[in-house]
Amino acid sequence: MPLPADRPLGVALVGYAFMGRAHSQAWRTVGAAFDGPPVARKVLVGRDEEAVGEAAARLGWEEHATDWRAVLEREDVDVVDVCTPGHLHAEIAIAALEAGKHVLCEKPLANDTASAERMVAAAEAARARGQVAALGHTYRRVPALAHARDLVAQGRLGEIRQVRASYLQDWLVDEQAPMSWRLRAETAGSGALGDIGSHAIDQVQFLTGQRVSAVRGRLATMVPERPGADGPEQVTVDDAAWATLELDGGAIASVEASRMATGRKNALTLELYGTRGALRFDLESLDELWFLDTTVPVTEQGFSRILVTEPEHPYLEGWWPQGHILGWENAFTNQAHDLLAAIAGGEAYAPDFADGLALQRVLDAVIASDADGGRTVTL
Amino acid sequence: MPLPADRPLGVALVGYAFMGRAHSQAWRTVGAAFDGPPVARKVLVGRDEEAVGEAAARLGWEEHATDWRAVLEREDVDVVDVCTPGHLHAEIAIAALEAGKHVLCEKPLANDTASAERMVAAAEAARARGQVAALGHTYRRVPALAHARDLVAQGRLGEIRQVRASYLQDWLVDEQAPMSWRLRAETAGSGALGDIGSHAIDQVQFLTGQRVSAVRGRLATMVPERPGADGPEQVTVDDAAWATLELDGGAIASVEASRMATGRKNALTLELYGTRGALRFDLESLDELWFLDTTVPVTEQGFSRILVTEPEHPYLEGWWPQGHILGWENAFTNQAHDLLAAIAGGEAYAPDFADGLALQRVLDAVIASDADGGRTVTL
Amino acid sequence: MPLPADRPLGVALVGYAFMGRAHSQAWRTVGAAFDGPPVARKVLVGRDEEAVGEAAARLGWEEHATDWRAVLEREDVDVVDVCTPGHLHAEIAIAALEAGKHVLCEKPLANDTASAERMVAAAEAARARGQVAALGHTYRRVPALAHARDLVAQGRLGEIRQVRASYLQDWLVDEQAPMSWRLRAETAGSGALGDIGSHAIDQVQFLTGQRVSAVRGRLATMVPERPGADGPEQVTVDDAAWATLELDGGAIASVEASRMATGRKNALTLELYGTRGALRFDLESLDELWFLDTTVPVTEQGFSRILVTEPEHPYLEGWWPQGHILGWENAFTNQAHDLLAAIAGGEAYAPDFADGLALQRVLDAVIASDADGGRTVTL
Amino acid sequence: MPLPADRPLGVALVGYAFMGRAHSQAWRTVGAAFDGPPVARKVLVGRDEEAVGEAAARLGWEEHATDWRAVLEREDVDVVDVCTPGHLHAEIAIAALEAGKHVLCEKPLANDTASAERMVAAAEAARARGQVAALGHTYRRVPALAHARDLVAQGRLGEIRQVRASYLQDWLVDEQAPMSWRLRAETAGSGALGDIGSHAIDQVQFLTGQRVSAVRGRLATMVPERPGADGPEQVTVDDAAWATLELDGGAIASVEASRMATGRKNALTLELYGTRGALRFDLESLDELWFLDTTVPVTEQGFSRILVTEPEHPYLEGWWPQGHILGWENAFTNQAHDLLAAIAGGEAYAPDFADGLALQRVLDAVIASDADGGRTVTL
Repeated sequence: MPLPADRPLGVALVGYAFMGRAHSQAWRTVGAAFDGPPVARKVLVGRDEEAVGEAAARLGWEEHATDWRAVLEREDVDVVDVCTPGHLHAEIAIAALEAGKHVLCEKPLANDTASAERMVAAAEAARARGQVAALGHTYRRVPALAHARDLVAQGRLGEIRQVRASYLQDWLVDEQAPMSWRLRAETAGSGALGDIGSHAIDQVQFLTGQRVSAVRGRLATMVPERPGADGPEQVTVDDAAWATLELDGGAIASVEASRMATGRKNALTLELYGTRGALRFDLESLDELWFLDTTVPVTEQGFSRILVTEPEHPYLEGWWPQGHILGWENAFTNQAHDLLAAIAGGEAYAPDFADGLALQRVLDAVIASDADGGRTVTL
Repeated sequence: MPLPADRPLGVALVGYAFMGRAHSQAWRTVGAAFDGPPVARKVLVGRDEEAVGEAAARLGWEEHATDWRAVLEREDVDVVDVCTPGHLHAEIAIAALEAGKHVLCEKPLANDTASAERMVAAAEAARARGQVAALGHTYRRVPALAHARDLVAQGRLGEIRQVRASYLQDWLVDEQAPMSWRLRAETAGSGALGDIGSHAIDQVQFLTGQRVSAVRGRLATMVPERPGADGPEQVTVDDAAWATLELDGGAIASVEASRMATGRKNALTLELYGTRGALRFDLESLDELWFLDTTVPVTEQGFSRILVTEPEHPYLEGWWPQGHILGWENAFTNQAHDLLAAIAGGEAYAPDFADGLALQRVLDAVIASDADGGRTVTL
Repeated sequence: MPLPADRPLGVALVGYAFMGRAHSQAWRTVGAAFDGPPVARKVLVGRDEEAVGEAAARLGWEEHATDWRAVLEREDVDVVDVCTPGHLHAEIAIAALEAGKHVLCEKPLANDTASAERMVAAAEAARARGQVAALGHTYRRVPALAHARDLVAQGRLGEIRQVRASYLQDWLVDEQAPMSWRLRAETAGSGALGDIGSHAIDQVQFLTGQRVSAVRGRLATMVPERPGADGPEQVTVDDAAWATLELDGGAIASVEASRMATGRKNALTLELYGTRGALRFDLESLDELWFLDTTVPVTEQGFSRILVTEPEHPYLEGWWPQGHILGWENAFTNQAHDLLAAIAGGEAYAPDFADGLALQRVLDAVIASDADGGRTVTL
Repeated sequence: MPLPADRPLGVALVGYAFMGRAHSQAWRTVGAAFDGPPVARKVLVGRDEEAVGEAAARLGWEEHATDWRAVLEREDVDVVDVCTPGHLHAEIAIAALEAGKHVLCEKPLANDTASAERMVAAAEAARARGQVAALGHTYRRVPALAHARDLVAQGRLGEIRQVRASYLQDWLVDEQAPMSWRLRAETAGSGALGDIGSHAIDQVQFLTGQRVSAVRGRLATMVPERPGADGPEQVTVDDAAWATLELDGGAIASVEASRMATGRKNALTLELYGTRGALRFDLESLDELWFLDTTVPVTEQGFSRILVTEPEHPYLEGWWPQGHILGWENAFTNQAHDLLAAIAGGEAYAPDFADGLALQRVLDAVIASDADGGRTVTL
């Protein structure tokens, strides 16, 4: 599916909340930061005519629309970027793929495994037609994490044996924080596990290049009831989750996710321990990668704070001189760049929908293990 | 000078190198991030027709031009953003002000004091006509530094007695790094002192709210000769500079700037010590502000790592949820926002050209002190 | 059991390896650092006549002996400090208590629960006679951890919900590291779990003031075979261990222990998250306690690095002025001081043998859970 | 001057305040930590009979005395350790040397240059007789700093160009902190400069192996009057001091010392920037050395946190396993060990009295420069 010859690649974005804002910033910026095919921000799609109109003006989209199905019929739209709540992903993404569009779908792929399986099937069919179906685990495009993956792939850590991952936030510490759709199983699927634990698990697999083969899990709901619109309401998802993961390359990973970790704002932390070296990372300091190399003299060994802002580091050619740090949002621009490159080059893009489905199965296994008192569930 | 009634505020940007890229990103983003008057990126100006045309397309400007004087005559241009090398600032900024435009001028204001004085005069005349003349000491718009200034202004540090400031880079460590205009006195004015030491001194004055009243200074050129186009050439500016500053509020500040600080990439570090508290900051971790409050029990005192990403922090309403860190570039968007607010509200903008002139006089005093063996020079 | 009227309290130390050296340093130093009853280092006991003689001279003991039973009969010995390998603890400690001596027993209390139960019985009988039976979980006497416990006890963290504990070392990363008694189940009981995981679990209970009520656990042996004296030998203990602990106050703790965490030398890390505040600690920086207080304005919240060296901090009256940091060894002197105070004052000392038994039962439960595929084991 | 054949080396310590306590700990510990000649703590000397008697008992000295001259006549005293206030150093140290004793003299060598010169003459004469005259700049024996010096000496930093040193404390922040002898020029010589700035300057010379050849200085007294016994009294020494130092190897160092740096407790910080690498250190985390090596690939460069606790690190053979951190006091034991080795081996000990005199001259030059408005003073 070659690039359009006579016009820029047209993008439609569905959704304009937090993720929609971040993706808008990426599409607005990618052409200035990176070489690649030209892009037109054609249309922003939402349900509320007035609100989506205002958002389109503010976020820099040429048009707005309320009927995403109609948008899929437009010939000047080549890419559909799905930033809706999770339970709408499957319907929109599948329709977009069937309409011949490239798709970028925010994580989670879907709220349930059946939907995810249908999405994978649609993506496979689309891939045969030259379309790209990409999953938005954007943190893979944080330069420090991309660099970490490269170091692992180059063997700088040797064989990885132990991984520690956590994602700690604190926005539910207050017992009076109100009930919301994120705290109900029927709308959110799961709680901390699916929302942020999923990022941690995706990174474990991304960084090690290994797949989860078995899990043991535990979930907890620390504040079981919160103020709802009509009085106290039951929280039906987890506030915190723990798991140990066996990886098919032999490593063992621990994962902990929490929305109750007072004072930790957005702390996705990762530690990899291998036979030749080790790595540490914290998303709250996302330009830093800490690397320990056991091949230097023992008297000089220590974790090095690599400021991942050198021109030689991943994605840095698009940004600023060394030492000028990047923020959270830049990873979205990097993601847009990689997606455009995959579309232009006809290459595979990772993570794809199958990766999303595999991750969903790991999350399901954690939940199943917890339901069975913590026993091992094999994938 | 009211906002145009029927169209967005038109911006012309002169220059498209490093600073031009950063300013373009700011103008491209400000409307999505913040409320404020709508902006049109009308025209990018440069000397090389082809290059400026390509840059305009890439950086998202409607048009490009090579004759900045002609641009000043356009009625749809309201703001002129000057990102040229320093020796061109005076001519363009003064002409733009005289043409009735608002001006944002990158630092340094000028390479020499006489030019700076003419710019101040032009700015004063323009201010009487309702125009804004702003100086681009962008680091004042880093949220952590704006927050630091607020804490000082609120008296959380008490009376400030001692300040330590440094700006450390390492891009000249290699003796074979080639000669350039930045290393010649006639084009660059000074070296590390003017280029980065100026940021440190601006912050000292900004954060404390005090003005430099006397200085002692030292300059050094550690690698006196570098490879030029025609063989070895003399470096005629400083590689590193040191100063102690007396402030009119009674504090004493030390300042150190260097391009020879191996491994320090962009380390603008600031420490303020007052009778009630203290602050620390490092631009390489620009979302963090370290605050010590002596009014808490002594057993609980320590420098607190404040992650300056809460909605209540300066500028954060424009950005992402707590814990989602910002990068270097966001400060430019914050700057554009403040400039638009000043234009829309008819308010004063700081720093202005007079601040730039005052800073230039401090730099001159450091150089004069060094020339006199280090003796005190009073301002 | 009053203090001897006419002579210093006599101490006998059994064992002179790593722990014996550390305890010798404590007994040598305690009188200079703290007020308390005078102490005489009477006799060092070991099996090898020549070696124990040399050690006694070097470590500053008046005499040496090879028969610990004979030492128990000495009237000038009031305290017996047991620093032997774990499998000898029960016999010596029980005999010493029955001989009317105060006992300090290094952790672990014993290698098996039956021995531990007999020790507790002996300690209870001795306590009725005014004797002290103390367990050497020395890290409770690290000033930062004692201060952490105080902050929790004062309610500065509110209700604690989530705890993260790990103890990471790396001395088994090398696959060629030789077989030793520590790697055989019959001599060591367990591996990383019992050796260092036990410290982490003790701290979880000490800091929160809560007891473990249920556990889920996992163990792994990453290098199953190592070079022995007669060729490759099976490693029969864990290299790494993971657990989640339910505490009787409602909190949940995760614990991870490893000897395979490349680059982590002695990293006992602790994180406590409560409704009002949070704490963080790392034994590799043992003078620092990181405290976050949610009752300060949100714009000023952050983890504060408290340097626990103020005169008002626990144990600091015995040491140096503020900012003069303490090392690992000082905790042993603090422990000796507390033990002497308990003996002199007739007060209870914590942790005691019953604490050691309770901890052993937690470790057993972790092992049992792992053996059952990870399912919950209730205590 | 060979070691005594039939008895341990006898030590007399003069002074039992802060430094006397630290030196006592060193003499008490050195034999257990390190191999070396046996030592007897013979006598503690002070002016107040009762107080010195109590101190001797507490700190573990065999006897006490009030007449230091009489102690010098004792044949069983081989080493005299001078921990009195600075104005008494010269008289005692010279007499001890003339009496044939080895001498360890705390810093500063003397309060005035004339006394220091006489001490150097006495030390030279004594050296010809095989005696050691050592100066107590103990921080040279902090393992991380000794390791830093080794790395520099091995060329791991290349040619050093720029050094940054500071020593920041905060015990005079409170304006009501009372007057004391340390704040009067006649008793203390100088203030922050001589007390702590001297440590920073000693480290600059120690670490670089270069000597100060010229200085520019500034002094300030921020709180000029403090409560004295009879009402307000003038502070006649500096609260803070700044200097830039030219070194004879071509490097330039900045030095800042302060007793007004709110929240900094004992922050001797050092940064060395060379053509091949860089080092950073902070005495508040004294087991850590941060090393940056520019010879590794640029994508892996960063400051490495070396935990200086490996057996291969300086002095660590005397202490605990890797990761078991040392405190401030251990450096005194290391110093005693080095002194004993010098005595036993007939080797030179550094720093010696001549080093103390040279340092005093640097301090004098800083003061002279300040008095001359900051101008360069050449040494």
